[in-house]
Amino acid sequence: MSRKIRMGMVGGGRGAFIGGVHRIAAAIDQQIELVCGAFSSNPEKSRLSGEDFFLPADRVYGSYEEMITKEKELPEGERMDFVSIVTPNHVHFGPAKMALENGFHVVCDKPVTFNVEEAQILKKLVEETGLIFALTHNYTGYPMVKQARVMVENGDIGKVRKVVVEYPQGWLATKVEDTDQKQASWRVDPAKSGMGGAMGDIGTHAENLAEYITGLKITEVCAELTSFVEGRRLDDDANILLRLEGGAKGVLHCSQIAVGEENGLNIRIWGETGGLEWHQQEPNTLQVKSLEGPTVHYRTGVGSLSDAATAAQRVPAGHPEGYLEAFANIYKNFATCVRARLEGTEPDELSKDFPSIEDGLRGMIFVEKVVENSRGNEKWTKL
Amino acid sequence: MSRKIRMGMVGGGRGAFIGGVHRIAAAIDQQIELVCGAFSSNPEKSRLSGEDFFLPADRVYGSYEEMITKEKELPEGERMDFVSIVTPNHVHFGPAKMALENGFHVVCDKPVTFNVEEAQILKKLVEETGLIFALTHNYTGYPMVKQARVMVENGDIGKVRKVVVEYPQGWLATKVEDTDQKQASWRVDPAKSGMGGAMGDIGTHAENLAEYITGLKITEVCAELTSFVEGRRLDDDANILLRLEGGAKGVLHCSQIAVGEENGLNIRIWGETGGLEWHQQEPNTLQVKSLEGPTVHYRTGVGSLSDAATAAQRVPAGHPEGYLEAFANIYKNFATCVRARLEGTEPDELSKDFPSIEDGLRGMIFVEKVVENSRGNEKWTKL
Amino acid sequence: MSRKIRMGMVGGGRGAFIGGVHRIAAAIDQQIELVCGAFSSNPEKSRLSGEDFFLPADRVYGSYEEMITKEKELPEGERMDFVSIVTPNHVHFGPAKMALENGFHVVCDKPVTFNVEEAQILKKLVEETGLIFALTHNYTGYPMVKQARVMVENGDIGKVRKVVVEYPQGWLATKVEDTDQKQASWRVDPAKSGMGGAMGDIGTHAENLAEYITGLKITEVCAELTSFVEGRRLDDDANILLRLEGGAKGVLHCSQIAVGEENGLNIRIWGETGGLEWHQQEPNTLQVKSLEGPTVHYRTGVGSLSDAATAAQRVPAGHPEGYLEAFANIYKNFATCVRARLEGTEPDELSKDFPSIEDGLRGMIFVEKVVENSRGNEKWTKL
Amino acid sequence: MSRKIRMGMVGGGRGAFIGGVHRIAAAIDQQIELVCGAFSSNPEKSRLSGEDFFLPADRVYGSYEEMITKEKELPEGERMDFVSIVTPNHVHFGPAKMALENGFHVVCDKPVTFNVEEAQILKKLVEETGLIFALTHNYTGYPMVKQARVMVENGDIGKVRKVVVEYPQGWLATKVEDTDQKQASWRVDPAKSGMGGAMGDIGTHAENLAEYITGLKITEVCAELTSFVEGRRLDDDANILLRLEGGAKGVLHCSQIAVGEENGLNIRIWGETGGLEWHQQEPNTLQVKSLEGPTVHYRTGVGSLSDAATAAQRVPAGHPEGYLEAFANIYKNFATCVRARLEGTEPDELSKDFPSIEDGLRGMIFVEKVVENSRGNEKWTKL
Repeated sequence: MSRKIRMGMVGGGRGAFIGGVHRIAAAIDQQIELVCGAFSSNPEKSRLSGEDFFLPADRVYGSYEEMITKEKELPEGERMDFVSIVTPNHVHFGPAKMALENGFHVVCDKPVTFNVEEAQILKKLVEETGLIFALTHNYTGYPMVKQARVMVENGDIGKVRKVVVEYPQGWLATKVEDTDQKQASWRVDPAKSGMGGAMGDIGTHAENLAEYITGLKITEVCAELTSFVEGRRLDDDANILLRLEGGAKGVLHCSQIAVGEENGLNIRIWGETGGLEWHQQEPNTLQVKSLEGPTVHYRTGVGSLSDAATAAQRVPAGHPEGYLEAFANIYKNFATCVRARLEGTEPDELSKDFPSIEDGLRGMIFVEKVVENSRGNEKWTKL
Repeated sequence: MSRKIRMGMVGGGRGAFIGGVHRIAAAIDQQIELVCGAFSSNPEKSRLSGEDFFLPADRVYGSYEEMITKEKELPEGERMDFVSIVTPNHVHFGPAKMALENGFHVVCDKPVTFNVEEAQILKKLVEETGLIFALTHNYTGYPMVKQARVMVENGDIGKVRKVVVEYPQGWLATKVEDTDQKQASWRVDPAKSGMGGAMGDIGTHAENLAEYITGLKITEVCAELTSFVEGRRLDDDANILLRLEGGAKGVLHCSQIAVGEENGLNIRIWGETGGLEWHQQEPNTLQVKSLEGPTVHYRTGVGSLSDAATAAQRVPAGHPEGYLEAFANIYKNFATCVRARLEGTEPDELSKDFPSIEDGLRGMIFVEKVVENSRGNEKWTKL
Repeated sequence: MSRKIRMGMVGGGRGAFIGGVHRIAAAIDQQIELVCGAFSSNPEKSRLSGEDFFLPADRVYGSYEEMITKEKELPEGERMDFVSIVTPNHVHFGPAKMALENGFHVVCDKPVTFNVEEAQILKKLVEETGLIFALTHNYTGYPMVKQARVMVENGDIGKVRKVVVEYPQGWLATKVEDTDQKQASWRVDPAKSGMGGAMGDIGTHAENLAEYITGLKITEVCAELTSFVEGRRLDDDANILLRLEGGAKGVLHCSQIAVGEENGLNIRIWGETGGLEWHQQEPNTLQVKSLEGPTVHYRTGVGSLSDAATAAQRVPAGHPEGYLEAFANIYKNFATCVRARLEGTEPDELSKDFPSIEDGLRGMIFVEKVVENSRGNEKWTKL
Repeated sequence: MSRKIRMGMVGGGRGAFIGGVHRIAAAIDQQIELVCGAFSSNPEKSRLSGEDFFLPADRVYGSYEEMITKEKELPEGERMDFVSIVTPNHVHFGPAKMALENGFHVVCDKPVTFNVEEAQILKKLVEETGLIFALTHNYTGYPMVKQARVMVENGDIGKVRKVVVEYPQGWLATKVEDTDQKQASWRVDPAKSGMGGAMGDIGTHAENLAEYITGLKITEVCAELTSFVEGRRLDDDANILLRLEGGAKGVLHCSQIAVGEENGLNIRIWGETGGLEWHQQEPNTLQVKSLEGPTVHYRTGVGSLSDAATAAQRVPAGHPEGYLEAFANIYKNFATCVRARLEGTEPDELSKDFPSIEDGLRGMIFVEKVVENSRGNEKWTKL
C-alpha cells in the first residue's frame, strides 16, 4: 500500500498546545499525513487552522460530527484512516465513541475520558469493533522506558520491592487560571477536567509509567490530595502511598505547585537484586544499579540494548532525542498497526507496544479511587 | 583558657564505625583532644583501642561507669570536659544519664535513646543540670543545609507548602546480619535498636532535616513500614505521608533495601514563591528555584551566603567539604559552647546551632508514632 | 501561498544515515514536503528508496543531473523548490553547483565541499544568483546556542577572553572502516572526505559553533593532528590552540578515538564579567556564570529568554527537545526564507538565522590551515 | 612507639590560607600533633598564632632559622619530627634546605621552589640525607585518583592515547591584587611566585595529576600563556598542547580568569580500549568508559576498588569525602613513613604513595619550559 496513513484531527486549532504536539509526532516519521480536521468548536477558527495546515477547505469541518459523517462518505484511501482527539478531557468521549461507531481507528489524548463510566463504554466499543485505539501516555514511548520495562521483565533487578514515581511541576503555583492562560483554565475546572486536577493531568502519567515498567498493577492507595492555591476547586498536589501486586510498595507524588519544577516526571524502582532510575528531563539515560557493583549509566544507542529500546530511537548515541520523538513513537507504532490492518497483515510485536483503552480505563479508576481515599478516613482503598 | 576541650569517649573501639567518625570530627578543628575512654565493654579491647589512640593506660577504662567515676576525681583541666557516646542505641541512655548526673557535658549519637521514656528523662536532666547536650544529627552541620534553613526563615521561598525528604540506602537489601557485618547485626535487633529499624537509623535523620530546614514541626503521619528481607524483625523500608504545621504537606521515605543506593539523603521544599533542593551526596550545592526565573545553583563559598553557611565552611569554593566536615561542625559548635561555659562567657548565636536533646526527643516520638500508625488502621496519627 | 515548500533530495537512500535525519528535520514543522529525489548513484536503490518515501515513480531519478534537468521543466508549484544534498563530502559540489545554476535553492550537508576552491566557486554562485543556501551546521539550531549567542552579543559576559570548544567521539577508536560500517568507510578515505578526517567531520562543527556564539573569527591556529588507528590515512584526533579576533584565546579539540564518548560537542566561553557553558548532550541547559554570584542554569522555556531562543523551541519547559529539533530549526528558517522569496516578501530577522555558504567557506579554510599547521614547524598559521 | 608524630610549621599564621589546610590535614587522622612553629616573619603575629593553636610560648619562634636551631637541641620525642612549610613560593627553599641539613623530614607546599635550580639542590639534599620529603600535590590524595592510576597501570583502558587535563578558576578575573586579597598579591608577583603565575599555582597540579594517573612523562610542550588582566605581570591563563611518552597526545589548560569557575581541576584520559574521567569538584566519582558498553560510575566505597583507593577513604560509600581528606592522605602516608623510620621498620607500599621532591623538580621544569615555549617561536619545546 504505497501511501501514508491518513489522519483527521479533532481539536488542536490555533492557540492550542497538545494539538501541535500531536501533529509533529505524527509528522516525524513521515508515515502519516493530516488530511482533514475539526480543529475548533468555533468554525471560523477551525477554518483558519485548516489554512495553517495547507488543507483544502472542503476537508476542514465545523464539528467532529460533521467530520466523521462526511469523511465516512469518501472512498477508502481518500478518507481519513483514523481520528486523533486532542481536545480537553470532557470532549474525548464524544468523538472517540462516534469515530469507533463509524469504523475509524482512534488516537486519543489522556486521560481517556471524563470519568470511569465513559472509559468503560469506550473499552467495550473497542473490543466489539476490533478497531485500533491508542492513548497518548507518551512517556512510555521513550527508548529507555522501554529498556527499563524489558529489564524488569527479564528479571534483571529481581522481584520488585519498591517504586517511587514523581511528577512535580510548578506552573500552577499561582492562580494562573485567572489570567488568560488557556491551558490552565480548563484543567482546573471540574466540569472540563473531571474529578482530578493534577491527578488527571499528570498523576495518570505517573501511574501509567509505574505500571508499564514494573508490569505490576497498583492494588491499593492511601492518598492525600490538596488544593494549595486558594479558590482552586481541584487538587493541585497529591501524595500517595501505593501497594502493588506481589507485595511491592511505593510512593507516587505529583504536583503542579512545585515552584521551579518544569516537567519532572521520574521513576526509581528497586528489586531484590538491582535498581533502575529514569528522569524524563534527561530521557536518554537509564541508571542501572546492582547489589555489588557501581551504577551503570545505560544510554540510548550505547552497547547492547533491548530490541524495544533500539526500535524506539532514530539517531545514534549522543544525538539526544526528546519528548517529541517519544510521542512520535506512539504514532509510529499505531501507524504500523493501522497499515498492517489495511494491508491485511499482522504487525510485529514491538509495534503493538502503545498505550491502549485498557490503560485509559485503569487511569480513570486510579483517579477515582485516589480522590475517594483522599476524601475519606479509610487508610487504604482498593483499586 | 589556653587549652583544648577534653573529651572522654564511650564506645568506638576497634572495629566500630561511628566512633572513628566522632574522633575525626572532634579532631578536625583542633579544639578538642581525646583524653580518655571506655571504648568497649570488653576491657582488653578497650585497652588496645586506647593504645591506638596514644592514650596513657590509666585513662583507658573498662566501663563508662568507671570512666565517669574516676574522671570526676581528677582536677578540672585534667579531667575530661565532656563525654562522647558512640555506642549502639540501647547503650546511649546509661552513660548519658550518668554523665549528666556527674556534671559532664554530653555529645550523643542518634537516635538519642532506646525509647521515648528514656529521652524524656534525659531532657529533664539536661534542663535541671543546665549542662550542654549535643545530638549528632550531623547532616544539619552542612553549610548548605544551614543556608536552606536561613532562606526559609527569611521567607525567600514564601510559606512552605510541600516537603519531600528521602533517605534511600541499599546496604541491607540482603540478609547481611547473618554474615559478620557488625554494623548490621545490632541495627536489625529490636533489643538493641529500639522499635524502629531503618526508621531509627536513618528515618530520624530525615525527620530532623525536614524540621530543621523548614522550622515546621511534623504534626501527623500516615505510614507504611515494611520488612522486605525475610526473617528481619524491624522495618527496612518506610513510606510516610506527612502533615506539618501551617498546612504544609509532605512525603518522607527511607529504605535500607534500595539496591545500589549509597547514602542518598536529600530534601526538596516548595513554598509559595520558591523552592529548595539539596542532596547529601553532593552537599556543596543548593538549588534555589523561583516562580519566574531559572534555577540558581548556590555553592559553598560562592557569592553572598548567610553567615550561618559561611561559618560552617573551612576552605574556599570548589574545595569540596563533605560528611566529616559537616559532622565536625557539630563538635566545633559544641566545643565553642563548652569553652564559653568554662570561661564564663556567652557563645555567639551561630555556635549554638547544633541538635539538642529536644531534637532527640522529637525523633523518638516520631519513630514511635510512625510504628504505631503503620501497625494500625487509623489513617492519620498525631505526634 | 497555500502549499508546502517542495524538496528534492540528492543522496540519502536506503542504508544512509544523514539523509534520514534531513527528511525528519524537514518533516517536523510540516512546512516542507519531499517531492522527488535522486537517492543513490545506484538507480535501483534510488527507485526502492523512492517507494519507501511514497513518491511517484516519475519523481525518482537515477542521478542528480537528471533530477535537476527534469524538475526544471515542471511548472512552479509542482517542481521542487529546493535541493537538499546529503551525499558524502566529495559529492556536495556537483549537485550544489548545478542546482544553483538552474535556479534552485540549496540545503547542503557539511562540510560544504571537498576543498576551499570548490567552496569559493559556490560562494560566488550564491552571490551571483541570489539564491538561498543553507548549510546544516545543525548544532547552531539549538535554542540555548542561540541564547548564548545573543548573550555574548548583548555584552552579558563582557569582552570574550577564552573559548574552549570540544568534540570528543569514540566510534572510530578501532578500525571500523575494515568492517562494513558504511559511515566510517568514506569518512576515513581522503578521496571522499577531503584533507580532514575528524577535522572535516566534526572539527568544522566545533569551529562553527565557537564563531557563531562568540561572533569572533578565529585568526590563527596551532595544531597537532594525529591518526591513532594504525593504517588510517586521515586524522582521527586533533588538538588545536586558537587565537581569535580581539585578543581572545582558545582551545579546540576533537576526536573520534575518545573511547566511550558519544557525541560530546560542548563549549565554554569566559568573558571579562561572565561565562557560558553548553553541552550538546544536555542541550536544554545553558550555564551562565558571573563574577560574584552563583551559576544560573538557564533552561529552554524557563523565564525570559531571548526571542531567538524562544522562536527555536516547540514545547514548554521540561519537555526536552533534541538533535532532530535543532536540525529542524535550520530547515524551518530556510523554508520561511524560501516561502518569503516565493511570495515576494521579506522574512523576519530571526528566520534568516541559519548557516550560510560563508560559514561553509570558513570551515574549509579552517580545515586547510589546521592541516597545514599540523604538518609544518611553524607555531602559528593565519587563517 | 606510642606517641604522635611531631610537626613544626613554617608560615601559616593568622590570615593565611594554606597553613590552616595543612593543620587540618595533619589533624584528621590523629597521627600528628603540632608542637611548634614559626608562623610568620612578624614575631608578634607568630606569637599570637601560637596561642591560637594552644602551643606553649617557648615553642613559638620568630623565624624558621630559630625554630630549626632550637628544636634540634631538644631530645628526640620532644623535638619536632618534621617541618611543614606553608609559606609563599619564594620562602620554600630556605626552610626546606635548612630542615634537611639539620636532619628533619619535610612536608612542603607546591610548587616546591622558586626555580629549577633550587629544586635540584633540594633533590640532591634529599638523596644525600635519606630524609623523607613530601610535596603537597594534594589532588593525588583522592581515592578515585588513585583508582584511576591503578586502572591505567593494570591496562584497563589499554595504551594511553589522549589526555585532557583542565584547571579553570575564576578568582583572578579582575585585579583583586589591588584590593587587600592577601592570597592574590603574592601569587601575581614574579618576585614571590616565580616565573609562572597560574602555571605555578595550578598548572603544576594539572601536570602532576596527568603524570601521576597515566604514569607517562610529558616530553614536549607547545604553549600560549596570557596575562588577561591589564597590568598583571604573570600569566593568568594557559593553553598547552602536550606530547607524552609512548606517543600519547594531550591538552592542558588552566586559568584564573575563567569567571564563575571555582576550583575546576578535572581530567579525561582515553586509551585504546577504555577511558577515564574525574572531576575534583565531585571527587567521589570516577567515570569508566569502554569500547562497547555503557559508562560505569565508580564511586568511593562501592564494589571492588583497588587497595590504593580503599586505603585512602575513611567512611563508607555515600558519605562524601573531599579536599581536606585528600590532603590528609598525603599527611597520613607521610606520617606512616616517618613513624616507620623512627621505629626502624619498613612502611607498606601504599603508604609510600605521596608526591616527592622528584615530582617537585618535574613541576619546576614544566613551568620553565612552558614559559620558554610561550615566549618563543619554536613550536615544540622538549622537557
